[in-house]
Amino acid sequence: MKIHNVALVGAGRMGGLHAINLAASPRFRLAAIADHSEQLASGLAGEVGSKVASYDDILGDQSVDAVLVASSTSSHLENVLLALRAGKSVFCEKPLSLDAHALAEALPEIEASAKPVFIAFNRRFDPNLRELKAQFDGGAVGKIETLHIINHDPALPRIEFIPRSGGLFKDFTIHDFDTASWLAGEEFVELYAAGACLIDQKIGELGDIDTAKLVLRSISGVLCLISNSRRTGYGYDQRVELFGSKGAIRVDNVPGTTVSRFDEGGGNGASFPYSFAERYAEAYRAELDHFADVLDGNSAPSTGPRDALRALRLADAAEQSFRVGGPVQLAQGE
Amino acid sequence: MKIHNVALVGAGRMGGLHAINLAASPRFRLAAIADHSEQLASGLAGEVGSKVASYDDILGDQSVDAVLVASSTSSHLENVLLALRAGKSVFCEKPLSLDAHALAEALPEIEASAKPVFIAFNRRFDPNLRELKAQFDGGAVGKIETLHIINHDPALPRIEFIPRSGGLFKDFTIHDFDTASWLAGEEFVELYAAGACLIDQKIGELGDIDTAKLVLRSISGVLCLISNSRRTGYGYDQRVELFGSKGAIRVDNVPGTTVSRFDEGGGNGASFPYSFAERYAEAYRAELDHFADVLDGNSAPSTGPRDALRALRLADAAEQSFRVGGPVQLAQGE
Amino acid sequence: MKIHNVALVGAGRMGGLHAINLAASPRFRLAAIADHSEQLASGLAGEVGSKVASYDDILGDQSVDAVLVASSTSSHLENVLLALRAGKSVFCEKPLSLDAHALAEALPEIEASAKPVFIAFNRRFDPNLRELKAQFDGGAVGKIETLHIINHDPALPRIEFIPRSGGLFKDFTIHDFDTASWLAGEEFVELYAAGACLIDQKIGELGDIDTAKLVLRSISGVLCLISNSRRTGYGYDQRVELFGSKGAIRVDNVPGTTVSRFDEGGGNGASFPYSFAERYAEAYRAELDHFADVLDGNSAPSTGPRDALRALRLADAAEQSFRVGGPVQLAQGE
Amino acid sequence: MKIHNVALVGAGRMGGLHAINLAASPRFRLAAIADHSEQLASGLAGEVGSKVASYDDILGDQSVDAVLVASSTSSHLENVLLALRAGKSVFCEKPLSLDAHALAEALPEIEASAKPVFIAFNRRFDPNLRELKAQFDGGAVGKIETLHIINHDPALPRIEFIPRSGGLFKDFTIHDFDTASWLAGEEFVELYAAGACLIDQKIGELGDIDTAKLVLRSISGVLCLISNSRRTGYGYDQRVELFGSKGAIRVDNVPGTTVSRFDEGGGNGASFPYSFAERYAEAYRAELDHFADVLDGNSAPSTGPRDALRALRLADAAEQSFRVGGPVQLAQGE
Repeated sequence: MKIHNVALVGAGRMGGLHAINLAASPRFRLAAIADHSEQLASGLAGEVGSKVASYDDILGDQSVDAVLVASSTSSHLENVLLALRAGKSVFCEKPLSLDAHALAEALPEIEASAKPVFIAFNRRFDPNLRELKAQFDGGAVGKIETLHIINHDPALPRIEFIPRSGGLFKDFTIHDFDTASWLAGEEFVELYAAGACLIDQKIGELGDIDTAKLVLRSISGVLCLISNSRRTGYGYDQRVELFGSKGAIRVDNVPGTTVSRFDEGGGNGASFPYSFAERYAEAYRAELDHFADVLDGNSAPSTGPRDALRALRLADAAEQSFRVGGPVQLAQGE
Repeated sequence: MKIHNVALVGAGRMGGLHAINLAASPRFRLAAIADHSEQLASGLAGEVGSKVASYDDILGDQSVDAVLVASSTSSHLENVLLALRAGKSVFCEKPLSLDAHALAEALPEIEASAKPVFIAFNRRFDPNLRELKAQFDGGAVGKIETLHIINHDPALPRIEFIPRSGGLFKDFTIHDFDTASWLAGEEFVELYAAGACLIDQKIGELGDIDTAKLVLRSISGVLCLISNSRRTGYGYDQRVELFGSKGAIRVDNVPGTTVSRFDEGGGNGASFPYSFAERYAEAYRAELDHFADVLDGNSAPSTGPRDALRALRLADAAEQSFRVGGPVQLAQGE
Repeated sequence: MKIHNVALVGAGRMGGLHAINLAASPRFRLAAIADHSEQLASGLAGEVGSKVASYDDILGDQSVDAVLVASSTSSHLENVLLALRAGKSVFCEKPLSLDAHALAEALPEIEASAKPVFIAFNRRFDPNLRELKAQFDGGAVGKIETLHIINHDPALPRIEFIPRSGGLFKDFTIHDFDTASWLAGEEFVELYAAGACLIDQKIGELGDIDTAKLVLRSISGVLCLISNSRRTGYGYDQRVELFGSKGAIRVDNVPGTTVSRFDEGGGNGASFPYSFAERYAEAYRAELDHFADVLDGNSAPSTGPRDALRALRLADAAEQSFRVGGPVQLAQGE
Repeated sequence: MKIHNVALVGAGRMGGLHAINLAASPRFRLAAIADHSEQLASGLAGEVGSKVASYDDILGDQSVDAVLVASSTSSHLENVLLALRAGKSVFCEKPLSLDAHALAEALPEIEASAKPVFIAFNRRFDPNLRELKAQFDGGAVGKIETLHIINHDPALPRIEFIPRSGGLFKDFTIHDFDTASWLAGEEFVELYAAGACLIDQKIGELGDIDTAKLVLRSISGVLCLISNSRRTGYGYDQRVELFGSKGAIRVDNVPGTTVSRFDEGGGNGASFPYSFAERYAEAYRAELDHFADVLDGNSAPSTGPRDALRALRLADAAEQSFRVGGPVQLAQGE
């Protein structure tokens, strides 16, 4: 088993999550951690037994095989390009960019690079969604007709996050755009997005929304519903249902425990996980494993820049649909 | 306990269902059955121990307190008006009309009548939906934010039914329009309907659709998703979920049995009911009970012509939205 | 469809339940009701549209085809014999007798009678248990190895009932003895019963128990666990699980609704029914239907006096096992 | 965070499981692995980045803080004593011994040792069982009345294992004896065990059984049912239910996925895990964490030799009950 030397850029929440998984994996050595905040970088390095380095030093270090980009979203694309130019393979936390135009411009360079770029859409590595896809691909429910995705966050993010989030569609729905494209296995060419600010007026004052319902139509006619909310109050509500010509396949929430209690008040089950880190813990480990396979030369990245661009264009269309109050057509084959 | 003399007009599928429930209820006597088909009427009368009569004779019979209208949809409104003019109370199977204009014109006469008119939207009498509404009305999940309704039929109707059905939105979605208005407790003022013919091309050739996804927005901003399909292949899929500011309440499908089997192939549960008559058996009995309360003078009809008109206008808007390919605004307070 | 003239003896709780089902069934006419309490009999007769009669008059009435015996347990056997001697078919609420010796003595006369005697063990008519049995009989899980029966009452009976109940094993466990014999399809020949008075000391002072766990072994080696409690506090807990050589089949509790709620406190499902009348509503109607089939000559009684005797002997053995504190062997083929 | 130097004795199935968890934990360093089979030891050492050593060398190595005993069951007690005499803390895989007499004799020396001995009953570290216990201890269902434990293995062990297993009660039921004592929080003083060889006749020919049902009674009167099977065919069936004076708490099986499929054949859910390593993965990690706490001096072992002895005496009693065919009394306070 080859052990891959990986450096991490970005020591925030997502960087920390990946650092811990890298440290626990026998397939990686976490060579160094870079972050604008020396404090964040050194705290994390201490926790996982790595060391701090500048991103420049990392790029110049011949022993580093790959870079895991988990810096702030606005720097993703630049950090990816720098890593490629330095001859590193790349694992990039989603989204690759919030700017479809800039991403489209950079695409030729990325695709011409000798090194692989993996865009980490964690949902694709969730064992439950993979089981759904495997059953569907195996013909278990015939031809896909429609798809429902429920993606509701447990609690509002801090209000300071909203302005730099990219907005609900690019920050949040983008996961669902990727999931829908992946599961349906075809392009969506029409989209209607209804949004509202129902949870916190401050979000509305910042020009964003906290709740959305979308209807997408694929090139072959598949209809997809997406439901988004920034706050459930009861946990991370993550469900997907695929309706086919011969039946339906459903991914339900993962229960926190299997304990239930029955008393005068009825039955009481456990809530599901409250955090994405807990809900998708296995997915995050699995995407690292996939990246190790890519580095081993045994697999191409299962998602790349074109997937990122597709999802981003759907998010842009959602934004536009919401603004104009009507459906938006997407050009095919771009 | 007063026993009410009721006559039935219409001896088809719905008439038969109501006739059996009337016969089994201690609060009603099924005095007579009228139908254009003498054969249907006498067959049903024999089955439930009633007799055949013409609708004219029924209307002229002073011993008949009330008329249950379950004739073909196109005759509902006329039969209701005739019954009111003859001084009968009325139980009318949904929909009251497929023509919003005609219904609006008839409304003053109906509302001026001394006798009550109950429009039977069976969902409102389902014990599960009533429990959801009771919990919501009791404040269990705070303020309503969004609503999801899944209404999928087990199997396609016979193709001959499609041309006289009124179309998917008026025949099928109309239930969900009423359910949404009832649960949200307010008017929906915007609607987007995406439809498709994914199941049977013959339906498309007849100018109708078999699959639809709708997004509705209420006057206060509540968003509602409706999903419709004419065929699941696995049973009658009837689910509702209400998301509020403090949690969510869900009505799941009613399982056919509580039996499950575990073997090498995994776990195998029972399917849910395949027919509306089975799924809503209790609701159909409960709506008769409600009508007996109305006849006893102890209750006003819980749904009346205005509810029918509201649902019909939403169906018209859905039709229009689907045709023009964009959202439609509904005038308030009509 | 032939309509059978049935008379009811016993207007208590079980008599009332059967009277309502008889009145609602198109296959029966409830000709008369007899009870030592004139008041009970006339109250029930008024409710279901029947009339009061003495048991003697009923037995002498040639128009009465059958008698439904739901009088006090101690009079069951005598009332059955009187009915048979009067040429009536018999539906007898369980148990036929609390005295195995007396029952064994009466058996030849009962079995020599020209008229059928049906002993109503309602569990055998529960759609869920029937589905379990059908799957098992169909070979779904191979050969039966073991069986678990949970039978827990929602709440304690009134303490006055205890002395005339016959004791936990004859009053309560007797259902499970019959269910076990029916599902396993063979005789149980060894039994160990552990009992305790854990809920209400007054029951212990009356010489009875309120909680029991039993282990039975069949002639071929099948092991069966039975768990009994007189009070759950959370509803009527009725579960059965059959473990076979190729898998297991489980009957779970019937949920009161399909509504669940999710909030900060987790998930909250509905309790299951609290009353046997609600839980086994369909079973009680189904056993009447079966009896109509018997009266039509289309079926033999699915349970008869020998089944009653078998269950009673198991209850006696349980009593003995509990008293001596060890397992008891039952003679085969008695 | 102090990192503890641990050596492993035994490189078989359980040793391998613990070795992987030790290697992944930041609180331990796996210093060395000993096994009679040089091949097993070096294979495992290579896999987890440790080295091979003899048990003697391990005992003489001052840098080794603790020994994890996962050798063959028959050598557990001796290896524990050797480790204690060498001044090592001990983590011992269950069971500590199959010989209650020998264990009772060794108890004084073990308890006089300065170093802690932790006996690893993995069930006590299952998050679901812990949640059940936490709810019960918090008074959620009042006073415990009865307890049901279902412990069924997915598939038969290799027949060669049976003769050295110690028999079903000491090898398998011993988990349930410990779980019952832990949950009830009191001693069981009476026990009845019914056993049978229903799955594989070869097991019977070796003098063992493959199926058992037990009834235990505690000193205060709590009744406990235990059900054991060596083979389900459908996965690892692990359920516990505690019935109290105010309700019940249930631990259900952990589903393998949350995916379900609905088609013409009904609903199809995923099976549960097939292996103990998967089902109790989290428990195995948690027991190592607990042991690190013990080594840190922050906790006493949650289970020790007396717990092992208690469970073993219950297993001996079960054996005896099964042999004599009747209940067995256990002396208290031994």
